[in-house]
Amino acid sequence: MADAAGPDVEILDTTLRDGAQGEGIVFSVRDKLSVTETLDELGLSWIEAGNPGSNPKDLEFFRLASLLKLKNARLCAFGPTRKKGIRAADDPQLRSLLGAGTEGVTVFGKTWDLHVTDVIRVELEENIAMIAETVAFLKAEGRIVIFDAEHFFDGWAANAAYALSAVKAALEAGADRIVLCDTNGAAFPNAVADGVCAVKETAPTAFVGIHAHNDSGLALANAISAVQAGCTHAQGTLVGFGERCGNTALAALIPSLELKLKLRCLPEGRLIRVSELTRRVAEIANVSISDDMPYVGAHAFSHKAGMHTDGILKVRRSFEHIEPSAVGNNRHFLMSEVVGRSAIAERTKEIDASITRDHPVTIALAEKIKDLEAKGWAFEGADASFELLVRRELDRYRPLFRIEAYRVMSEHPTGETISCSHAWVKVLVEGQHEIAAAEGEGPVNALDGALRRALLRFYPNLAKVRLEDYKVRVIDGKEATAAKVRVLIESTDGQRTWNTVGVSADIIDASRAALVDSIEYKLIGDIEQQEQHE
Amino acid sequence: MADAAGPDVEILDTTLRDGAQGEGIVFSVRDKLSVTETLDELGLSWIEAGNPGSNPKDLEFFRLASLLKLKNARLCAFGPTRKKGIRAADDPQLRSLLGAGTEGVTVFGKTWDLHVTDVIRVELEENIAMIAETVAFLKAEGRIVIFDAEHFFDGWAANAAYALSAVKAALEAGADRIVLCDTNGAAFPNAVADGVCAVKETAPTAFVGIHAHNDSGLALANAISAVQAGCTHAQGTLVGFGERCGNTALAALIPSLELKLKLRCLPEGRLIRVSELTRRVAEIANVSISDDMPYVGAHAFSHKAGMHTDGILKVRRSFEHIEPSAVGNNRHFLMSEVVGRSAIAERTKEIDASITRDHPVTIALAEKIKDLEAKGWAFEGADASFELLVRRELDRYRPLFRIEAYRVMSEHPTGETISCSHAWVKVLVEGQHEIAAAEGEGPVNALDGALRRALLRFYPNLAKVRLEDYKVRVIDGKEATAAKVRVLIESTDGQRTWNTVGVSADIIDASRAALVDSIEYKLIGDIEQQEQHE
Repeated sequence: MADAAGPDVEILDTTLRDGAQGEGIVFSVRDKLSVTETLDELGLSWIEAGNPGSNPKDLEFFRLASLLKLKNARLCAFGPTRKKGIRAADDPQLRSLLGAGTEGVTVFGKTWDLHVTDVIRVELEENIAMIAETVAFLKAEGRIVIFDAEHFFDGWAANAAYALSAVKAALEAGADRIVLCDTNGAAFPNAVADGVCAVKETAPTAFVGIHAHNDSGLALANAISAVQAGCTHAQGTLVGFGERCGNTALAALIPSLELKLKLRCLPEGRLIRVSELTRRVAEIANVSISDDMPYVGAHAFSHKAGMHTDGILKVRRSFEHIEPSAVGNNRHFLMSEVVGRSAIAERTKEIDASITRDHPVTIALAEKIKDLEAKGWAFEGADASFELLVRRELDRYRPLFRIEAYRVMSEHPTGETISCSHAWVKVLVEGQHEIAAAEGEGPVNALDGALRRALLRFYPNLAKVRLEDYKVRVIDGKEATAAKVRVLIESTDGQRTWNTVGVSADIIDASRAALVDSIEYKLIGDIEQQEQHE
Repeated sequence: MADAAGPDVEILDTTLRDGAQGEGIVFSVRDKLSVTETLDELGLSWIEAGNPGSNPKDLEFFRLASLLKLKNARLCAFGPTRKKGIRAADDPQLRSLLGAGTEGVTVFGKTWDLHVTDVIRVELEENIAMIAETVAFLKAEGRIVIFDAEHFFDGWAANAAYALSAVKAALEAGADRIVLCDTNGAAFPNAVADGVCAVKETAPTAFVGIHAHNDSGLALANAISAVQAGCTHAQGTLVGFGERCGNTALAALIPSLELKLKLRCLPEGRLIRVSELTRRVAEIANVSISDDMPYVGAHAFSHKAGMHTDGILKVRRSFEHIEPSAVGNNRHFLMSEVVGRSAIAERTKEIDASITRDHPVTIALAEKIKDLEAKGWAFEGADASFELLVRRELDRYRPLFRIEAYRVMSEHPTGETISCSHAWVKVLVEGQHEIAAAEGEGPVNALDGALRRALLRFYPNLAKVRLEDYKVRVIDGKEATAAKVRVLIESTDGQRTWNTVGVSADIIDASRAALVDSIEYKLIGDIEQQEQHE
């Protein structure tokens, strides 16, 4: 039963379990801890964080996670019902599940008769016993038990009586949540609503949830349909990734539930952080959020057609289904630098509070950004480069070094197998020259190494700076190898993280621009901090 | 009324109109012609290809498009109802619409009273007259008129009587299709079904369609819900891109309608081409299809969890909602090289029909691919590199040249603004050496130029080869500039197009590998063709 003070719909995030089953998703233990903290910050109810039975290194995560001071979320571990023919207490997978030491456990069991007879190949009655005994055992161990009714909708379509009997077995054994899963992503929203209603009729007091997959592109619709039919628990992954076509994207589900169905999922005031925190999880997972992702994507509130821009200037809701700020996202008018100025002024104010929309600096910046964007620059993922641009325009920038010359060479002197890149860089710092060289894995790495060595004599605090991420995007692929590239670099000094950008037809020159911005941003920040202390 | 022999649900693709209003989407006239031919090849009913009133260069496209021999699709141009206070016949935008010379025209009109009073700012009655007179005028000119009821669902929620009166005005003036639009992407599937039913009640014989946007992530669900409620016309864009969060992705809608609701949308035998043709449109638009796109994405049938792989080996539908081949997609078992062998044998057979799953060559290839994939290679987008790999294993490969040495240099001799890349390459071809040098926009372009120059003396048919696309992906961003990169190159000789891949920590070396594969693939293909002719 839902707590009186709890949310209207309880949200369980399974980024670290089902999400990790997506192609290309790999989390280190440190990544998993960061994701856990981020999801807790957003205020989700549950974090399903691993399958300790199939992945023993998850136990290390659960040990460290138990030390986190989570404010909102409860952790749960995930695993199957007991194996056939043994006692639950003797099943090593169930022992691993308990070993995770989490408040909740998610246990999944078969509800589609085809899977019982043809996949796990046990008698239909034995499967029911496996569900009932597993739930009872975990309850007796003091866990909150979330029962995932695997393939419920396929099972219900094939053999409704059996699917419902599996659900009833879990409920009667004490399961605290019954989660109806569309494991293969095959169901349509009307079938989901019918299935939920059938369970609610059978067990009117059950706390019923939904777990949907996106194979038909309907995961969000199915989750909404299930909630409209009475579910008060919804599972998914914040960004939406997961097996095959992914899970319900919680970053899109939660705004629909909160803003449109007026059902509270998060603590007060958290919804406005959903864009930022979704990006953070995507960053940790090293995936990109598609620009057209509902609610949180970079283009979700971008208006290109002139008529749309005009409509919005008259009445916001004429072409926007919600106010972008409600989810912490921003409106973009792609054709109108006039309105772009308001947005620029908003950000410039963070550096100089006196700047307004009509200030000459704002006007000059709008021109400059328009010009740079036409050349392929993009500052959305490069706050530090944007800040440097603003500082230059505000005259609050001092060049701390200058690259006088550099040369990068990639040599393959003896054919195709041996490769060697090296670079030298000559810098000028306050009238003094320094030259340094480095070898590297590829030309950019060599340039990076040489530039830091040359500057380290003047700025020893650069020793702490590490590049965390390096991304290359070809801007106009149609020009092939002569195309422009945009390089994005993420840097950290252990305390702060910042992003910079560079654009050029030459990948080395684009990298140089982003590296220089990264170093300048760090140095200026350190100097200002020191000045404030003095 | 639907033709007796027509599809159950008529599909209109608006990639070239609504799709082109998406951020970052720019089509040349040639691109638009290629997209038109591709959509026709898939067998769609309608192609909405531009707004000649707001974009005069669309008229040039329509002139050229009228020369195409389309087999399935009819073209339509798109524009608004007449301006307020003038006669339809005097409206220059309507004249442009007719000037497109298309069989169909889509005309959009306001059905949400808020838009009438606050955005276009006319009397409610005048808006009804604008709709009726525009439709009547276009009908009198002999066009099939598709009326897009803009913001229908918002309008119906705000003032149902007015929204329905606007629809009725279009119908009574002779509109052939009434398309209910969720312009802001705000509606939920149950509201869409209710709206469609209300229109069908008002006008039982009307040919009603749906146009949905994805701002709530529900475009597909809304289109399906509308069809279930009686719509027989559905609009969207094949890949799904469009304003803000995009339109209904037809590549995902059509399989759901055909395979699950058993409603025919395409001519017999076309559904299996949907993956291929969707990719082609994405290529032309220079966007990537997200790997987790339903039905057609690269990961749509990828299985990572051991239990899933095991289930599918026993019963295919245990973890797959449809057979991947039904949409021309492929199953991937990410953890199982055993099953990978079957897939490899399938493809190897195209070169040597005698190869089976258990052939030593298949076993060796499976090992090699597993090894290469662990190092970051991916052959999904690089058929030509895969074929070369197979040929090497089959001993049906002869090295046609060897790079003896190369050097690529990026120099910035006078600071940050001047950049210059040059390369030299020394090749060995049948005992003869050749050395050549080239300058380029960046180091890869320079290497490409030098390599071709060196080989041209031996292989003059390389003069026809052009690089069409060049993509760089950082494989593990976390190692920053020392990370491995994967380079994908698309090449063409005007007749064929092929894709190759290279992987290295050094972007230049990765590019070298992909360039060499591209050239070898071309040369081997030419030689085999010549041998067949002799």
